[in-house]
Amino acid sequence: MNKPLSLSFASEALSEQDLTTLAKLRKQAAADIITSTTISTCGHPGGSLSCLEALVMLYATTNTNPQAPLDPKRDRIIVSNGHITPGVYAVLAAFGFDDRDSFLAHFRHAGSRFGGHVENHVPGVEWNTGNLGQGLSAGTASALAAKLAGNDSKAYVLMGDGEHQKGQISEARRFAVKFKLSNLCALVDLNRLQIGGKTDDVMPTPIAEEYRAAGWNVIELDGHDFKALYGALRKFSLGHVAQPDRPTVLILDTVMGKSVSFMENEHVYHGTTPTKALAQKAFVELGGEDRIDALEAMRKAKSGAEAAPPKRPHFSGPALTVPPAKTYTDKTDNRSAYGNVMKDLAVANNPAGQVPKVLAISCDLEGSVKLSDFKKASPHAFIEAGIQEHHAAAFAGRLSNEGFTVFWSTFGAFAGCEAYNQERLSDYNDATVKVVATHCGLDVGEDGPTHQAIDYISLFSNFFHFEIFVPCDPNQTDRIIRYVAQSKKPAFVAMGRSKIDIVKKPDGTPHWSDDKPFVPGGYDTLREGADGSIIVTGTLTSEAVKAHDKILAESGKRYAVYAVGSLKPFPNAVVREAAKTGKIITLEDHHRDTGLGRIVATVMADEGVHAKLLRLGVAHYSSSGAPADLFRDAGLDAAGVTKAALAF
Amino acid sequence: MNKPLSLSFASEALSEQDLTTLAKLRKQAAADIITSTTISTCGHPGGSLSCLEALVMLYATTNTNPQAPLDPKRDRIIVSNGHITPGVYAVLAAFGFDDRDSFLAHFRHAGSRFGGHVENHVPGVEWNTGNLGQGLSAGTASALAAKLAGNDSKAYVLMGDGEHQKGQISEARRFAVKFKLSNLCALVDLNRLQIGGKTDDVMPTPIAEEYRAAGWNVIELDGHDFKALYGALRKFSLGHVAQPDRPTVLILDTVMGKSVSFMENEHVYHGTTPTKALAQKAFVELGGEDRIDALEAMRKAKSGAEAAPPKRPHFSGPALTVPPAKTYTDKTDNRSAYGNVMKDLAVANNPAGQVPKVLAISCDLEGSVKLSDFKKASPHAFIEAGIQEHHAAAFAGRLSNEGFTVFWSTFGAFAGCEAYNQERLSDYNDATVKVVATHCGLDVGEDGPTHQAIDYISLFSNFFHFEIFVPCDPNQTDRIIRYVAQSKKPAFVAMGRSKIDIVKKPDGTPHWSDDKPFVPGGYDTLREGADGSIIVTGTLTSEAVKAHDKILAESGKRYAVYAVGSLKPFPNAVVREAAKTGKIITLEDHHRDTGLGRIVATVMADEGVHAKLLRLGVAHYSSSGAPADLFRDAGLDAAGVTKAALAF
Repeated sequence: MNKPLSLSFASEALSEQDLTTLAKLRKQAAADIITSTTISTCGHPGGSLSCLEALVMLYATTNTNPQAPLDPKRDRIIVSNGHITPGVYAVLAAFGFDDRDSFLAHFRHAGSRFGGHVENHVPGVEWNTGNLGQGLSAGTASALAAKLAGNDSKAYVLMGDGEHQKGQISEARRFAVKFKLSNLCALVDLNRLQIGGKTDDVMPTPIAEEYRAAGWNVIELDGHDFKALYGALRKFSLGHVAQPDRPTVLILDTVMGKSVSFMENEHVYHGTTPTKALAQKAFVELGGEDRIDALEAMRKAKSGAEAAPPKRPHFSGPALTVPPAKTYTDKTDNRSAYGNVMKDLAVANNPAGQVPKVLAISCDLEGSVKLSDFKKASPHAFIEAGIQEHHAAAFAGRLSNEGFTVFWSTFGAFAGCEAYNQERLSDYNDATVKVVATHCGLDVGEDGPTHQAIDYISLFSNFFHFEIFVPCDPNQTDRIIRYVAQSKKPAFVAMGRSKIDIVKKPDGTPHWSDDKPFVPGGYDTLREGADGSIIVTGTLTSEAVKAHDKILAESGKRYAVYAVGSLKPFPNAVVREAAKTGKIITLEDHHRDTGLGRIVATVMADEGVHAKLLRLGVAHYSSSGAPADLFRDAGLDAAGVTKAALAF
Repeated sequence: MNKPLSLSFASEALSEQDLTTLAKLRKQAAADIITSTTISTCGHPGGSLSCLEALVMLYATTNTNPQAPLDPKRDRIIVSNGHITPGVYAVLAAFGFDDRDSFLAHFRHAGSRFGGHVENHVPGVEWNTGNLGQGLSAGTASALAAKLAGNDSKAYVLMGDGEHQKGQISEARRFAVKFKLSNLCALVDLNRLQIGGKTDDVMPTPIAEEYRAAGWNVIELDGHDFKALYGALRKFSLGHVAQPDRPTVLILDTVMGKSVSFMENEHVYHGTTPTKALAQKAFVELGGEDRIDALEAMRKAKSGAEAAPPKRPHFSGPALTVPPAKTYTDKTDNRSAYGNVMKDLAVANNPAGQVPKVLAISCDLEGSVKLSDFKKASPHAFIEAGIQEHHAAAFAGRLSNEGFTVFWSTFGAFAGCEAYNQERLSDYNDATVKVVATHCGLDVGEDGPTHQAIDYISLFSNFFHFEIFVPCDPNQTDRIIRYVAQSKKPAFVAMGRSKIDIVKKPDGTPHWSDDKPFVPGGYDTLREGADGSIIVTGTLTSEAVKAHDKILAESGKRYAVYAVGSLKPFPNAVVREAAKTGKIITLEDHHRDTGLGRIVATVMADEGVHAKLLRLGVAHYSSSGAPADLFRDAGLDAAGVTKAALAF
């Protein structure tokens, strides 16, 4: 099916025929909103109706194609107020993106692809939203991606007004101005109602003033007037705005529940659905057909196109040239090793004057996260997002699904703790972003407990797609980063701040020194031993090796030392191997109850592997001081591990 | 020691003598900034110097008292740009709040109380910050607390300019206007530099315009001019502002590194400290004494008042009247049971016309989280914070340390996932807030995976203070909420959305029906059995009981069923008990790898308790549909558990 209406902006105004078609499309979609929500008995009809003209007009005027919904040069329509699925799915069905009856029958039906919030199982949906305030960040990613790729596609972001209470929107707004995203158009459904009642009562938000203060082009119009919508979108599209190098927002004066008398301006219809009797009344008003009984029968029979299971489109970055591994022999910080790989990647993949393949994002910590060489090598591929981690995380996630390999780096306390929910949404969007967090653990040292991220393994273990790596020294860091650069999966890589010892073989040569690619789910035997085992991850690995020596010197006992840089997937085999020694000590610069130790314990219990277990990690808030002192105070340095082992 | 200067706003202008004293105080503090950061070799001198006049003037003009730093009627000074500890600690020492030499010698010294970011170990510090963008939210809590308590104390929040990139500030700004916080004064240190260089390059932020758009009183002034500072603070304090029912911001035009020639306007001094040679140059310029060698000797010797270990002030809410427990016999949702307790608490503790004791905060979900009856019973104790979870979480945390018992409720996806880092900071501030999250797990149903919080146990397990409760039915909910209302600890309580069966004894009476108070760290034996055990938490508890019956009917095997509503502290004894049956199944509406199952596994491994373990929980993203269907699809209903048990 082709689109029922495809408008260019060649003419200044809509024809009468266009208006008739638009009205017809709007009417059918409105009836479909009533039908779908009546059948599902839950959902959000009110906002779906208030921004329905905008939705219809967007699909009519943009370069969007049901035959090629992922055409790289398409315009992107991102729905940030993700709860208005009835409206979005109705319009997508009307424009041929998906099957209308399947939607109507199976909206919010377990196992179907027509969920309660927009999801890209449904062709035409660009980004899964639902948690409010994130869509504009995704839109900036699509807009910037188009600019980077040198194509003239545009990004449209539909948002609610209540949603504008979310602070992340102010971050995205600022970012869009800094990066001159003239190809970004936000549309705000100003229906003045939210779940709790009038927006002015719940939380007064001067939306237009906020956009003006941020420096956007602001156009206010009647959101139910197709002519006004066409005119405003045309102005944006042709750059006929006051500041042509700035983004534009259309503020749509609308009515919740528009065109259904009993719903209009009633905030309960934000999230309440009509009874069948009221639905019939609505059909009469709208001139729609009541097909509820037949569709309910379809729902019961689970028939229709819903049989196809929900499945996301496939995303991946471009094929990269990844130069061979480097080997460090002297004390180095993992983050410098990371920075050096990033420089290699920039030189190999981002020649000046071409579309870059690898992008790196910083949040005012370019130097700390060691991205300065990357930036120097390919300034056109470096993005400084400011102290705006919520925005940066969502932006990075979306950007990674726009044809680039995307790295985002900041401190662990911000990449994990602060932006957790944005990472969660990226995971659910099958983003391929690589989040590389530096300054994790007590190793952040003097910045103190507010900055000591001791939960990074725990946090990213909640996601179904992210891999988690915690490199054990700069050489393993080098190899892990080269792996994640080529991987199609999202990855979280956690490292500390300090220069740390190189992990070496008993013969004194670096443990990781060859060109063998890093394999997720593996582990390394650093020292052999039969009297006990230490399983260690990350910053403290060389302390574990020193503890091996100390334990041997002080007691004659040999503890095996196993390094695990891959926390997810986790090498269960290391636990079986370590358990053979009868005693396992886990060691991590992480909360002792939520990281490596707990994973090892779980493998033991799951697999019935028996051994004595001692989990060493951070057991209470630390203080502000030199990392070595903090590790000593927490009993996590070689001396502490030795003491614990001897008492074990 | 009394304050060296205590100014009222009775006179219109400062006297020459005042100016001399202020200049002297400023000079000493500036030298102390140089001394402390030179000794620590790390820290943030640049911003400390740019807002030093503001700090001195604040402690000189406010109702702050080193003899009674926690006087309830004091003015609150919250430092949101928490990295400027050198300036804050220098001024606090000058005003008699702490020992000057201890600070100078032990700044950023492991184990001392003088950390890299402000912490309330040091008297005079109100709120631990460091993660930027949270202080204004804390300030709104102090300001609103004063209004609620009917005293005229004021809240001052010092902030950086780079910090203003954080979206949370826009949320707090809106909140302050809605609640007419005329007693709130923000001071912005506009030095135009941040770590990465010029703020205008890193992320242009029209700070004054943003405050104006939000409706604040905006006063712009020279931040190094004591006369101007006095005048502006006087205007605020006396209400001589354009909009007397609105909050006020002072935008301070300042110079990073002010008064030390080599530091002025050099962004590297945001986070770089002077060498000893440069420090000497600074002392010459400032007229300060070089005592570095003597103080370094103190540091090495660990001598001075630093010996007192870091210790927070004690916080707790007021003593509450908690009416006796209710017992439900029919299917009820846990959140309604919660709402009913909240109503009881309101009626018993919040009589009209008096200062309320229990406060409840909603984020546009008052009806969903069942706080409407609370609001009806005590409208003066209900706070609607809008769709602003980052702000609400930080606000709620701070408010709980201002003499109230504070409940904050929203969906699990927002209370946990979205506001995780704000909760983390509340935990580190020893906040006593009760976060009650509804709509957790797959039980949120049709709202789909973006709303399905399956990580709440995992998230709050990372905190050292929060207790975690996941009630197993409405009767246990009732008892848990009555417990947390009286507890001095922060608590996270997670519940689902649906009406669920009452957990009953074999004789058909409700399992939880007496007046025995809930005890954290306990568990309940719901069914006896010797062939295996099910340990269950939360929403799925009645499914576990049904599974007991089904397993018995289908195989003749008796599975014991243990309900655990207390996840932290966790009742390790339940694992030992369950292990006696040889087989343990854990069941939870939570990610299977990060919740109850993993805790049980850890207890097994820690304690050497052996049994076969099967962890049932959410193993992949679910879909949008009725909770019963989602549980069925995930194998978590009685049928699924039975099937798993029979195959186990």
